[in-house]
This record gives sequence, structure tokens and C-alpha cells, in this order.
Amino acid sequence: MVEAEITAAILVIGDEILSGRTQDSNSNTIANFLQPFGIALKEIRVIGDKEHEIIASLNALRTRYDYVFTTGGIGPTHDDITADAVAKAFGVNIGIRDDAIDMMLNRYNRDELTEARLRMARIPDGASLVKNPVSFAPGFQMENVFVMAGVPNIMRAMLDDIAPRLKTGKVIIAKTIKADNLREGDIAKPLGEIAKKYPTLSFGSYPWFRGDGYGAQLVVRGNDEELLEAGINEVVEMLKTLGLSPNIE
Amino acid sequence: MVEAEITAAILVIGDEILSGRTQDSNSNTIANFLQPFGIALKEIRVIGDKEHEIIASLNALRTRYDYVFTTGGIGPTHDDITADAVAKAFGVNIGIRDDAIDMMLNRYNRDELTEARLRMARIPDGASLVKNPVSFAPGFQMENVFVMAGVPNIMRAMLDDIAPRLKTGKVIIAKTIKADNLREGDIAKPLGEIAKKYPTLSFGSYPWFRGDGYGAQLVVRGNDEELLEAGINEVVEMLKTLGLSPNIE
Repeated sequence: MVEAEITAAILVIGDEILSGRTQDSNSNTIANFLQPFGIALKEIRVIGDKEHEIIASLNALRTRYDYVFTTGGIGPTHDDITADAVAKAFGVNIGIRDDAIDMMLNRYNRDELTEARLRMARIPDGASLVKNPVSFAPGFQMENVFVMAGVPNIMRAMLDDIAPRLKTGKVIIAKTIKADNLREGDIAKPLGEIAKKYPTLSFGSYPWFRGDGYGAQLVVRGNDEELLEAGINEVVEMLKTLGLSPNIE
Repeated sequence: MVEAEITAAILVIGDEILSGRTQDSNSNTIANFLQPFGIALKEIRVIGDKEHEIIASLNALRTRYDYVFTTGGIGPTHDDITADAVAKAFGVNIGIRDDAIDMMLNRYNRDELTEARLRMARIPDGASLVKNPVSFAPGFQMENVFVMAGVPNIMRAMLDDIAPRLKTGKVIIAKTIKADNLREGDIAKPLGEIAKKYPTLSFGSYPWFRGDGYGAQLVVRGNDEELLEAGINEVVEMLKTLGLSPNIE
């Protein structure tokens, strides 16, 4: 029996990424976070702070993948509309929750909990909270969707609280073979043949060009260590036959 | 008459981004590239090297936005399937083109044009080439879709060739107001009121937290310089009223 793959998608919500002002680093953090769980990230979408966009994207992704991780739009300002959009996507109500207020009282006095701050305690019905040890406004989990802050250090802290909630799959191991002076066109054919021979491994080729220098990194990925070793050896031998000096990392 | 906004999406194609091995920087490069053209980037999608995913995403994006920029998957190896997927998405044939070969002869001798390398000269019928002064394998434009390499320095060079082909819209100007010790909850209400007063401007709030320190950057964006100035002044005055010392950048 083939084990079903566990899959995930990321939904990055934020005009600041689309305008180019901010380089999104959260997706890469989540991608690397998911690796040791054996969860396969299948798609990333970045959209703006628009309710209908969030609802449409979230519904497309949450029905298709085992997990969805959203980042951004859960602060106290007028453009923070993620929680409401998630509630609408799931067709549930949203309201201020006592457990969310309790969490925020770690940072704020009760009289600092203004109307704006209380927006951060609004949680869709049925969701469980995700801890935020940085600024204490919670994220939340709604079924298979994890709703996190966009501020990178808050998001990373939230992942710690999410980790024990995730089911785990077969971990993918990746090894990189580096070779200077490798031209992809010279190895494309033999590499394709090796890839055909090992259909459960994936073989990626990533060239680089700097001035007159060039080379490539070949990445072999799979979840069977023995098979991976065999595939890597074939690639290394093939590169040596072409007179190259590959390094494995 | 309201001028129609010119819109764009990016489709990043590559398993290496989803695995976390590579941090995508191309999206941010394209986002910043589009700003001076007044083209509004509306969505970014990252997907793996799977033909049906590429076709489905490309068809979703190209019918919805004025322009689509794809990166990745146009090299000579077995996992480079973007050109074929684009041809299928448009329902056209694909074949080796003489003008693409001519471009590649800037780098390769004719006898180096192996079967694998000739894959890079396969261009969907009806597409025009995009120059690649780095490694000389072309990208291409198929109607409103620009197909570029994933290697960052090649992609940047391809944008230079694409620039004169783009129609231009109203340029969005953005100004950032920085303030230490700003807590979003304190300004959320007045900022929301200012945002309501200037419906054609966008007001974003981006907090940060470092140890015990905190603050936020407020970004005001719009295409009318006078209105932008007025909106910024109101934000600055509001921050001063709260005892903060804002800096404009």
C-alpha cells in the first residue's frame, strides 16, 4: 500500500509583499519547518489585503491540501482583515474570546485593551488559539488552517506551538551535488536517464552563471535512504565520466 | 472616467522553492521592477515542476490579469517542462525555432547544439523571443505571458528586454513613516479614520518587535502626489499628538 502523502500550502496575505516593499521570508521559513515532518509543501500564494481574495484563495487551498498556513493580517489596524475572512470562508461567526483576552493580558493591562486591541481577540467560532510569546496577540487554528502573524519573529514563535499538532509523513532527504564547469546541456541526457531509472527519486538541476564562470547544483531527493544513495552514486559517476569533479553536500 | 488599472501576476515554477532549499528572490525583483511602470502586482503563485499544475495556474492567471510573468523550468534538463506546458495552456504547437537557435549560437558552436540543448530552442507557435545575454537560451512572450529563466541574473537580464513591451499605468508612490515605541493598538483607530477619509490612498501598518523594543512602519501609497502629501501629514500629526517622533522616508 502506498502511504498517502501529507500536503500543505501557504497563503501569504499582504499588500507589502506585492508592492515589492517587503521580501517575503516567511514562506521559506515554513518550507524548511515542514521538511522534518515529512509534509510536502505543494503551493504558495501571495495575495493582497482583500477580503474576497482571501476567502477565494483559502477555500481553494484548504479543500485541496492537508494543511494551509496563512501569514499576515491579524493585527489591530483597519487593514487586518484575515480573521474575518477566515470566518467567512468557513461560514462561522467570529467574536471576542475570553481565552484570547487572557493571552493578551500577559502584555497589556486590562484598561489598555482598547476597541482596536480587542480586534486581535476576535476568533472564529470553533478555532483553537495559537500562542504568541512575542506580542501576545494569538494566532489560531481553524480545522486544517493555521492563521499566523506576518511579523517574522512572531510567526516563527507560532510555529513552535503548531508543531505538536501536525501529523507526520515520510521525511524527504535531499542531497546536493555541486560541480563547477558543469553545463546543463552536457548532462541533461544522462541525468534524464538516471531520473527515469529511479522514478521515486526527484533529480533537480540548478545552474549558475557568474561572469565567465558557470556550474550547476544537482539536487537528489527521496524518502528511501538506500535508493537515494544509489541514485546519487550514479549521478556522481556520470559527472566524473565527463571529467568533472563533483562535491556532495 | 476612471483609468483601468494595469495588473500582473507572477508564476514561480520550481520544486526547489517549495522544498525550502532556495529562497525565491525573483518575485521581489519583479515586484520592484513593475512599480515604475504603474503596473499593479496582484498575485504570486509558487508551484512545483508539474505540467498539469503549470497549465491550470497559468490559465487561471493569464485570463485574470493583464500580464503574467513566469520564472523557472526553461533549461535543458528533464525537469524543464515550462515551455511545453505553456504551449498546452494556449493550445498551440511547440517546435525548435531558427531564431532561437541563432540566439544560442552566440554561446555554443553548432556541434554543441545537442538534443538536450535544442530543447531550449523549442518555442510555442506564435511566441516572440526574449533575449538572454547571460547564457543565450531565450525566454519568450506568448500573448500576455512572459516566460523567463529562474536563475536570478538571467531573469533580471530578461526583464530589460521585456520592459519596452509593457504598457504603463499610473505610477503608485509610496512613503514610509517610521516610529519607534509605536504600538499599533494605540493608532489603529485614528489611522483607520484617516484611511476612510482618503479612500484612494492605502495605509499599511507594519509592526516590529525586538527584545523589549517595538515600533512600526506606516506606509502610505497612492498615485496622486498632492493627496499623498495630505494623507501623510495627517498621519504624522496624529503620531505627534500621541507623543511619538515619526520619521518620513
